[in-house]
Amino acid sequence: MGGAPEFHERPRFPGGFRCASRNIGLKPDGKDLSLFASDVDAAAAAVFTRNLFPGAPVILGRETIKGGRLRAIVANSKVSNVATGDVGLQNARRMAAAAARELETTPDRVLVSSTGVIGVPLPIEQIERGIQGMAAELQADPLLGAEGIMTTDTHPKALSAAVEGATITWIAKGSGMIEPNMATMLAYIFTDAAFAFSDLDGMLRAAVRVSFNMLSVDSDTSTSDTCAILANAVAGAVDPKAFSDTLVAGCIRMTEMLARDGEGATRLLRATVRGAKSASDARRVPKSLVNSPLIKTMVHGADPNVGRILMAVGKCVDAAVVPAKTSASVNGSEVVRQGTRVDFDEQRVREALAAEAVDLVVDLGVGGETATAYGCDLSKGYIDENAAYYSS
Amino acid sequence: MGGAPEFHERPRFPGGFRCASRNIGLKPDGKDLSLFASDVDAAAAAVFTRNLFPGAPVILGRETIKGGRLRAIVANSKVSNVATGDVGLQNARRMAAAAARELETTPDRVLVSSTGVIGVPLPIEQIERGIQGMAAELQADPLLGAEGIMTTDTHPKALSAAVEGATITWIAKGSGMIEPNMATMLAYIFTDAAFAFSDLDGMLRAAVRVSFNMLSVDSDTSTSDTCAILANAVAGAVDPKAFSDTLVAGCIRMTEMLARDGEGATRLLRATVRGAKSASDARRVPKSLVNSPLIKTMVHGADPNVGRILMAVGKCVDAAVVPAKTSASVNGSEVVRQGTRVDFDEQRVREALAAEAVDLVVDLGVGGETATAYGCDLSKGYIDENAAYYSS
Repeated sequence: MGGAPEFHERPRFPGGFRCASRNIGLKPDGKDLSLFASDVDAAAAAVFTRNLFPGAPVILGRETIKGGRLRAIVANSKVSNVATGDVGLQNARRMAAAAARELETTPDRVLVSSTGVIGVPLPIEQIERGIQGMAAELQADPLLGAEGIMTTDTHPKALSAAVEGATITWIAKGSGMIEPNMATMLAYIFTDAAFAFSDLDGMLRAAVRVSFNMLSVDSDTSTSDTCAILANAVAGAVDPKAFSDTLVAGCIRMTEMLARDGEGATRLLRATVRGAKSASDARRVPKSLVNSPLIKTMVHGADPNVGRILMAVGKCVDAAVVPAKTSASVNGSEVVRQGTRVDFDEQRVREALAAEAVDLVVDLGVGGETATAYGCDLSKGYIDENAAYYSS
Repeated sequence: MGGAPEFHERPRFPGGFRCASRNIGLKPDGKDLSLFASDVDAAAAAVFTRNLFPGAPVILGRETIKGGRLRAIVANSKVSNVATGDVGLQNARRMAAAAARELETTPDRVLVSSTGVIGVPLPIEQIERGIQGMAAELQADPLLGAEGIMTTDTHPKALSAAVEGATITWIAKGSGMIEPNMATMLAYIFTDAAFAFSDLDGMLRAAVRVSFNMLSVDSDTSTSDTCAILANAVAGAVDPKAFSDTLVAGCIRMTEMLARDGEGATRLLRATVRGAKSASDARRVPKSLVNSPLIKTMVHGADPNVGRILMAVGKCVDAAVVPAKTSASVNGSEVVRQGTRVDFDEQRVREALAAEAVDLVVDLGVGGETATAYGCDLSKGYIDENAAYYSS
């Protein structure tokens, strides 16, 4: 994959991209509407949630992205426009049309996202009014747009890196209802490099597979997950391999940012499985680790109850696992050898589990496949945020 | 299934069964060793965890149960004897032998269970010494034995009911690391009815399928799960249909007791799916509901964020689901019709979600299969119990 790319200290936009965000009254305060725009049409690809109850913006987005070209993304927070029936779909179309009018383009060039509570009607008149005049406010600061799509995120999330003469910028939001069988709830990637739709689509899918699709905050799959990439060609062609490597690295970095800011999370949890017999085992076993409430609470409490690692591996009942070939470590400290707990230094493992980033590595010893999953600890903050999300 | 059986107000044992429990110093206080004995050999069947890292008692138990006959069960709490290698298996054998000596039978007639922390050596000398003299303490009170197998359970769990002239008694413990792909951690069923091994085995598997196997406290599958039935024939033959119906009803009742006493649980959550296309969908969808952290926290907070029901159905991406045919209710209040949230009375749904038992019913409208899963809400108590389980 080459060396890790250098991310800019303060995220910036590629040439020809700008954004704006506003509070239009969906939330009592804080930004709740974002507009991302390219000066010219961009080649675009997107992947969406696999949830069987996709929101209206996802249904519309699947139709829109067939065109392979976008000028803009418009997204609101607070209300997700899911389970809202035919009216919901009409409202998503009206939202695209409002953004198109504002930017003097056509609705089929606008991707719509909505994130927030499921099953509440979208206040479309408020959005139509709220979007007016935003074109004049567009700026080259990605954090502005990242702010307007936040729900329970504790900070706006944006990253950027250079690839030869071009730039890639990632903007995303988490942070609960996240086991993206596809992506986090919303992740937008912008570049001024030149690529055809089909190349973009392939690179996006490959990057999502090892990043957003290996993220789980709470094993729940959102009905709104959307990950889109726009390439407006303003900076011309770059080396596809260099671009793809940087794309993957940025998606992984953003995945870690989302995991670390999962609802109630206090630390990043990474689980890596090596020596798996199949690629499917290599992906499933670390997902089981980062999804296990008992692993997540063990990490939260920095409690060296490491037998739970074997439990979480062993509950993948169809995976190729041979206890006597299985070993495991926590931030480099071996805790299991040949399926048996080793007599480790408890204080050292306590300290490893209390680190800012906790790496659980399991070697299954039965093959050559490897994969990493990303998650976080489970704290009382998760309960606080989710026991009254609708009411608060 | 006939009428619901009448459970005895205070659980009692069938003829010829007794038990005892002691504190032998594995826990600072509270009972930590239980012995269950039949006066005569009993026909016996058992099912065990599907976790790929079964504990030594499970490995030994699978061997023992092949004989189809048991005289006793010996079980300790605090240490599970899992991930303990060859020494662990030797220790499990020594534990069976110690119980056999005490009861003047042979080790192949003794089922061993251990429950507690994974990866800690079993203090076998302590158990061998501790078991001496227990034969003289055996009594006909099932709650005595239920006490000795408790870990984080808040109360001992036993039930009994009559079937014609015979009795069935259920004794079990929960209450975390429970998505029994088989059973809860430990569930023992005793009867004085007369049945051959093969009939017992079939009836046990059928009962477990609709009860313990539909239970999930936290989606984590224990390495120690064991569910055994002993039939000592002291009361002679009874009608197999009547017996089987009562066996199923008691297993479901015990499953509800375990769910209600899940770690940190404050309420029972039942999810029923109707109108599923296949039996596998009918089982998978309600499991997804009771396992969803967002559903569990919604119930905990009695927060009518019912769109999450569709999210949890829709994340079963391979199930036959047609949004426009899907409806849902909470304790009888309709909240979703044809895949769209209905304009329900929020206060009424809040009250339904605050009930002692919360029933989520989802009708998929695409077939005739139905199933119910059992779980509980997710509270801060779960975090408290599991962030320091090893250390405390």
